[in-house]
This record gives sequence, C-alpha cells and structure tokens, in this order.
Amino acid sequence: MNNMKKNTLLLVLFSSILSFAQSDDATVKTIYSQSLTNGKAYVWLDYLSNQIGGRLSGSTNADKAVQYTKSELEKLGLDNVWLQEVMVPKWERGEKEIAYFDTRGERENVNICALGGSVATPESGLKAQVVEVKSFEELATLGLAVKGKIVFFNGAMNPELINTFEAYGGCSKQRYAGAYEAGKLGAVGVIVRSLNLRQDDFPHTGSMSYMDLPNSQRIPSAAISTNDANKLSEVLKKDKNLEFYFKQSCKQFEDVLSYNVIGEITGSEFPNEYMVVGGHLDSWDLGDGSHDDGAGVVQSMDVLRLLKESGIKPKRTIRVVLFMNEENGLRGGKKYAEEAKRKNEYHVFALESDSGGFTPRGFSFDCSDANMDKVLSWEPLFKPYLIHYFEKGYSGADIGPLKNDNIVLAGLRPDSQRYFDHHHASNDTFDTVNKRELELGAATMTSLIYLFDKYGTVTISNVEEIKD
Amino acid sequence: MNNMKKNTLLLVLFSSILSFAQSDDATVKTIYSQSLTNGKAYVWLDYLSNQIGGRLSGSTNADKAVQYTKSELEKLGLDNVWLQEVMVPKWERGEKEIAYFDTRGERENVNICALGGSVATPESGLKAQVVEVKSFEELATLGLAVKGKIVFFNGAMNPELINTFEAYGGCSKQRYAGAYEAGKLGAVGVIVRSLNLRQDDFPHTGSMSYMDLPNSQRIPSAAISTNDANKLSEVLKKDKNLEFYFKQSCKQFEDVLSYNVIGEITGSEFPNEYMVVGGHLDSWDLGDGSHDDGAGVVQSMDVLRLLKESGIKPKRTIRVVLFMNEENGLRGGKKYAEEAKRKNEYHVFALESDSGGFTPRGFSFDCSDANMDKVLSWEPLFKPYLIHYFEKGYSGADIGPLKNDNIVLAGLRPDSQRYFDHHHASNDTFDTVNKRELELGAATMTSLIYLFDKYGTVTISNVEEIKD
Repeated sequence: MNNMKKNTLLLVLFSSILSFAQSDDATVKTIYSQSLTNGKAYVWLDYLSNQIGGRLSGSTNADKAVQYTKSELEKLGLDNVWLQEVMVPKWERGEKEIAYFDTRGERENVNICALGGSVATPESGLKAQVVEVKSFEELATLGLAVKGKIVFFNGAMNPELINTFEAYGGCSKQRYAGAYEAGKLGAVGVIVRSLNLRQDDFPHTGSMSYMDLPNSQRIPSAAISTNDANKLSEVLKKDKNLEFYFKQSCKQFEDVLSYNVIGEITGSEFPNEYMVVGGHLDSWDLGDGSHDDGAGVVQSMDVLRLLKESGIKPKRTIRVVLFMNEENGLRGGKKYAEEAKRKNEYHVFALESDSGGFTPRGFSFDCSDANMDKVLSWEPLFKPYLIHYFEKGYSGADIGPLKNDNIVLAGLRPDSQRYFDHHHASNDTFDTVNKRELELGAATMTSLIYLFDKYGTVTISNVEEIKD
Repeated sequence: MNNMKKNTLLLVLFSSILSFAQSDDATVKTIYSQSLTNGKAYVWLDYLSNQIGGRLSGSTNADKAVQYTKSELEKLGLDNVWLQEVMVPKWERGEKEIAYFDTRGERENVNICALGGSVATPESGLKAQVVEVKSFEELATLGLAVKGKIVFFNGAMNPELINTFEAYGGCSKQRYAGAYEAGKLGAVGVIVRSLNLRQDDFPHTGSMSYMDLPNSQRIPSAAISTNDANKLSEVLKKDKNLEFYFKQSCKQFEDVLSYNVIGEITGSEFPNEYMVVGGHLDSWDLGDGSHDDGAGVVQSMDVLRLLKESGIKPKRTIRVVLFMNEENGLRGGKKYAEEAKRKNEYHVFALESDSGGFTPRGFSFDCSDANMDKVLSWEPLFKPYLIHYFEKGYSGADIGPLKNDNIVLAGLRPDSQRYFDHHHASNDTFDTVNKRELELGAATMTSLIYLFDKYGTVTISNVEEIKD
C-alpha cells in the first residue's frame, strides 16, 4: 500500500474516534511552554532536597516539609489549603551500620544499611555463619538448617526486563518478607541484596515487615550493596563456613502525629466532583529523596499553578494531595481515602507521580475500558511532546485506596532506566534530577488533568450511551 | 466506538501492511537480552573514556583510540578489520584559558574555553570594551560600531522546544560563524554563550570557522558558561562601557595522518550490498567524550558482535565504521564516501549514533517514502522496548556524504533532554552514561539493521511493484 492510501484509511478510522477540539492543541502547548520557561517545580525541589533533606515519617524533617509545602501552596492563591491529620510510624536508623567478614586473614568491610522497620542487632553486633539463597523456594529447601545462621538473600533484579519496575517487583519480596521467612526458621539475621540493577557500593534501604512474628523471632535485617553482595557470594563459594558480622542500632518508636498537605482549586461547574493529583512527602532517610518522591511532590504542586498560569478554570475541583508515610505504612493514602468516604466526596480521577523525576513517557491507567478509550483518543495531543505510553496497569500506592468502579486512577510513567540506581539510597539526591525532565513531567500531568476535567470521565451510569 | 470494534478495524488495517514474520519477535527479543545481559559497549566505553580520554583529531589520544578499537574489533572474529587513511586537521587548546571583567572595584573571574579552530589572543591577553548581541541581525544593526570591541553573542537555546537538538540548531550559527561576522566588522574578539540549556559553570567548546577571512580579520573566539553569560549580561545593563579580558593560547598545526577504523561481516547472499553502522571516534578535548561520541562508537561496535551472538548471519555485508574528525572537519565521513564511490561499493543503508548514550526513543530517517513505509510496518516489533519514534528527518553528519536516491540513512534518536548539559564540555564524562541506556541503544540499532538486512531496502527500480 502506498503512503496516500494508508493515510486516507488512517484518517477515516481516526476521525471517527477523535474526541478533542482544535483548541486543545494550543492549550496543551501553553501548558508545556509555561512549565519549561516558568516552572516552579525545580526551585521547590531544590529547597525540599537541599534545605530540608531526607524526610522519614515522624522525623523533624518530615515536619519541616509539611510546613514548607503548605506555606508554598498558600502563596499560589488556591481556594483552600489545609493539613489533614494522620498518625504515622516513627523509626530511626541510629548510628551508621557496620559490617564485615574475614577471609584469608583479611577483613573485608562491606556497605550495608538497616531496612526500615528492622530491629537492632545486640549492642556489640551480631556474628554468625552466613548462608546464601536466591529465593524463598531455596530457603524452604534449607528449612531448619538455617537455624542460628544469617541468611543472605542474593536474588538479583532481572536486567532483561525493559521496565525496571517489573524487575523490582520480581524480587522486592526478599526485602519485605525476608526477615519474616528466615526468622520463622530460626535464623538470627538477614542480609538482602540491594534492589539495584547497577553494580555499585550503595546499599538501598526500604520497608520490611515481621508480620505476626513474636518478638523472639524478629531478627535484624539489612541491605548490602550490589558490589558487596557479589563479593560475598564469590567468597562463599570457596568458604562455606564464612562468618559475617554486622551491627545496627535502629529503633521503632510510638506512632506520632503528622499530616497530609492538601490544596485545591474549586470547580466552576461541578465543585463536588474531585480530581486528585499527588505524590508522597515522606522519603527514606539516606539521601534527600529527590526522585522518591520529591519530584512527584513538586510536580503535583506545579500542576495547580500551571493550570492557573495557563488560564484554565477547571470545571471540577482539583486537589493536590501530598501524602505522608507512603514509604513505611501508607497511612497518608489510607487516611485520605477514609476521609473522602466519610465526607461523601465524589472522586472521579486521581493521578500519582511516584516513579522518579525522569523524562515522562506516558501514563498507566487503572480504569474501565470506556475511560481507556477516551485516553487513547487523546494520544495525538501528546505526540509532539514524545508522550507515547498509554497502557492499563498500576497507578500508585497512595491513590490505590480510592479505587472503585468509576474512578480513573493514573500513574505518571517516566523513563525507568536510572530510577533504581538511586531508589532508597544515599545517592537519591538533587543533582541527579534534570530540570527539564522534571518540568516535562509536570506539564504532562497538567495536560492529562486539563483533558479529564474538560471532557469528564465515563461513569457506569453513562457508559452505555458512549458505546455507540 | 467500543474497544472491540476499534480493535477489529485496526486489525484489518494493520494486517494489510504487516511485513514481518512471527519469528522476528523472538529474534529482536534475543538481541535485547544479549545486549542487556552480555553487552560489551559499557566496558569498551570505560576504556575509551577512562584509559584514553578526550581524543581530538590529530592528538595522541586519537591515535590510541584508533589502535584500541581496531584491536577490539579484531577480537570479534569479523571477516575483515582495517584502517582507512585520512588526513585531519590538528588544533590544540594550549594552556587553560583565563577571563574576567572588573565591576565596582571587584574582579569577576568567568569560565571560558577557546572554540575549536580559534586563533590565540596576544600572549598578554586581550582587553576591550564588550558589546552584547543576541543574533546576527542585531550585530548587523550595530555594524561598524563594534570596531575595536569584543562582541558577546548571548542568544540562548529555546527551552520551549521539546527536541533539544532543534534548540541547538537554532543558535549554533553564533558559535560557528560569530567570529567571521564580527571579524568582518572590525571587532577584536568574540565571546559566545555556551550551547547549553542548563544554568551552570561549564563552558562548551565546538567548531568555528573563519571561512575566507584574511588573517588580519581572524579574531579569537571563546565560549562562556551560561551562568557567566547571564552575569556578564546583567553587569552590562548597568555599565555599557564594561571591559572584558581574556587570554587563550590555542594553535592550528599542519594536517596530520589519521584513520577511520572499519570492520565487516561479509554478507552470505548479497556480499556486494553494504550496510554501515557508525559513530565518530574523535571527540572534543575538554571531557572524555563519553556521550559525544564514545557512546555511538561502542554501540556501533557492539551491533556486529550482537548480530553474531544472536545467531544472525547477515545476507548483506555489515560494516562498522568509526569515523575520524567529525567534530572539526568531517574528513572521515567525506573520505569514507569518496572511497566507497571510487570502489563502486553499493551502499543500501547507513545508521549513525551521535546523539548521546541516553535511553533510545527511535530513529529519524532520510529516505524515500517507500522505505519509510517499510520502517513504519515494523513499529509493533519495537513497541515492547518502548521504541516509538520513527520520523523523517536528519540522519547524521558522518553518513551524510553517502546520500543518494536509494540509500536509507538513519540516525538513532535517544532521549535528548540531558544531552546539551554535557555536549562539548568537561562534564561529558563516563559517570554520566547509564549502562542500561547505552545497551538499549545498541540493541535498538542492531534490531533495525537485522530487519533491513533481512527484508532489504526499496530501491527506485523495485519501488513500483511494492506500491500495490
């Protein structure tokens, strides 16, 4: 078929599903231009990262981040800005961890960090024989043979998966439940390979849980850098009796009061229909949380500002929600959904940015087919901005509790290749965020919200008439 | 229209233009897996960048890069590996440049670097009144008023353009021809704003030319960092008589002998049809040339290795060409095309990677509509790898001289947002290249070559029968 024939066919097909106006092109262009020439996201992130820093739930820094973002939202001339109370867990790392093993008469110091939620080792540290496994299945075959030992979970992220989040999903269980599974079998400690596709020296923290284990079976759990995991594995091949030492002094405290930070523009036509955009304000303590999730926080804040700067008056009420405690409890996300339900607030749409501040590629959607069709009809509007990924899939942890049959849940999908180089590690820092990439993300989010606000979502009551 | 109806329509449309086999899915998958688990590009780049470093044409490092890449290609079991002689210009920067201006009794030191090809200042440096312009049009209105002065070209890259190469194209003329235009008017020196979208302290070099100007009008030309360009511009607003001082000791030498490095796998069916993949081996001297164009060099080398490792026996002869002297002369690219013509080598396809080692997004093509249709029919094969950009456009400088009516010229298009943060500056270094992004690029290039080798290109003699 030649070009002209194909183009005609495509045009016929295309115009039958077209569902946006010519003027939307211009509006989307204005949004991108505003973000790239007059964006605030990068300046806000600079402050969050470099003036405040890592903001683990319950910490002084988390408090500072609440106050800072609230006061910045108040400067934007929104219709309402407020704090929503939420009780959050408080865990502290304590002193820098120490770990080593001795081989051929030489001491090899290795880079570890306590996993979030772990208990401490005894004050003098913990030394025991170490046994390597690559999966829970392998642990099960060892069974009670791990009693008295340190279990070294060395399952690696699969580099063949193009979406690195899939590779993460494939072995994050080791980090989250490794201590639970090994503790049940009588192990005395757990060392987990960092969830990082790169070979480097950074240990990556993250949440873990003892589930319902009694205190006596709660064993200390730490992550080890990928370079050191490889080194340890090599040495273990030659020395099955190798002993490993580590020391950490982390501690869990009572829950403390914290807040979700919320701002909104009241809708001009349907003020009782709510559209949410958000990220999480808390971060791990090792870096400054620039990608996870400082980026999502400042992008979400800028969505409301960009709507105003672009002269858009939303029909529906648009809310930015900066969720507290995504990392180790999800209390903010749960609380927001609870309160929405209690107040009978009708939520039609929620968008989360929590996958790093890299170049945006598109969105994944957790929604009905009818709403997905709507999204796909807008693809041409996004093409000039190289936004091409519109697929069904996971949206985000914080907005997950809002799920119902009608709501459209969406997650921004930035390029994922570098994300796990930094995730939960001391190198999740401001200098690794590119200003333009961050701003393109904010513009992409704003454009999606503009379109869903303008054209509405398809709900079960009106889905039939849309079908033909 | 509901999902099913649309899918059916799309399927009908789609199957009529489908032009690849089921097994191609598996082959492309093998190529990507090989690259991501067993790639050599990153190891090669480590050596090129960290053991050799910046490799300006005519330098000892450029010689070392020729020898190193030749010896690495020889290890791959290709059918032929050889060097192609080419005479190249030799320019040296000399001592580190110095620049400052005095304002309110304080000396402000600023970051500059000589542009490639520039003459030196007098040994004691050059001091003169400085006048700012943002374009050649503005320079023309000043005319002879710039006589005896330093012209400061401060046109900035346009941040609203999504493709940063377009923004680069919009003002690279200032760097290339600024000294020519200002020299004609009797200016004594030129300072050009670095071609960088970011605000930072790195000056970015790059080529410039005096064209046919007599020696007496050839004035020294340097780039200034974006931060310092902004600072200078601010001070000039208050002090129109500001004087600027700079000193550089760069020098042009006689042309020297250098080489293109070439390796090939002989085609099994059409050995006299040539397909080229390449990047340029030379780089600027300030950084280590990791993105520009170490990345393209090692990706191109790995294309031939990945074809072999993936069990593909090409029908056509596949050549990797590592071009010398792209940056300041294009002598390698011109020489290769000349020799191809002289030997009557029938080139059907050429692919260049010279836009950085970032996540690949697709390709731009300089080819006939019939060949473009062919490419578009392969889009579904690339979709799982998030390769979505297939547009007509510029291919690459080194392969440009091969252009004719039949050949398909293609350029790899990686994500462009960070590229000009590093381009031609001292921060174009190995640590800014992500291993997976580099490997995804190599796999994407290999897949395109696999498909064009398997299905052939459309030439004028056979284009009519393809049309229906």
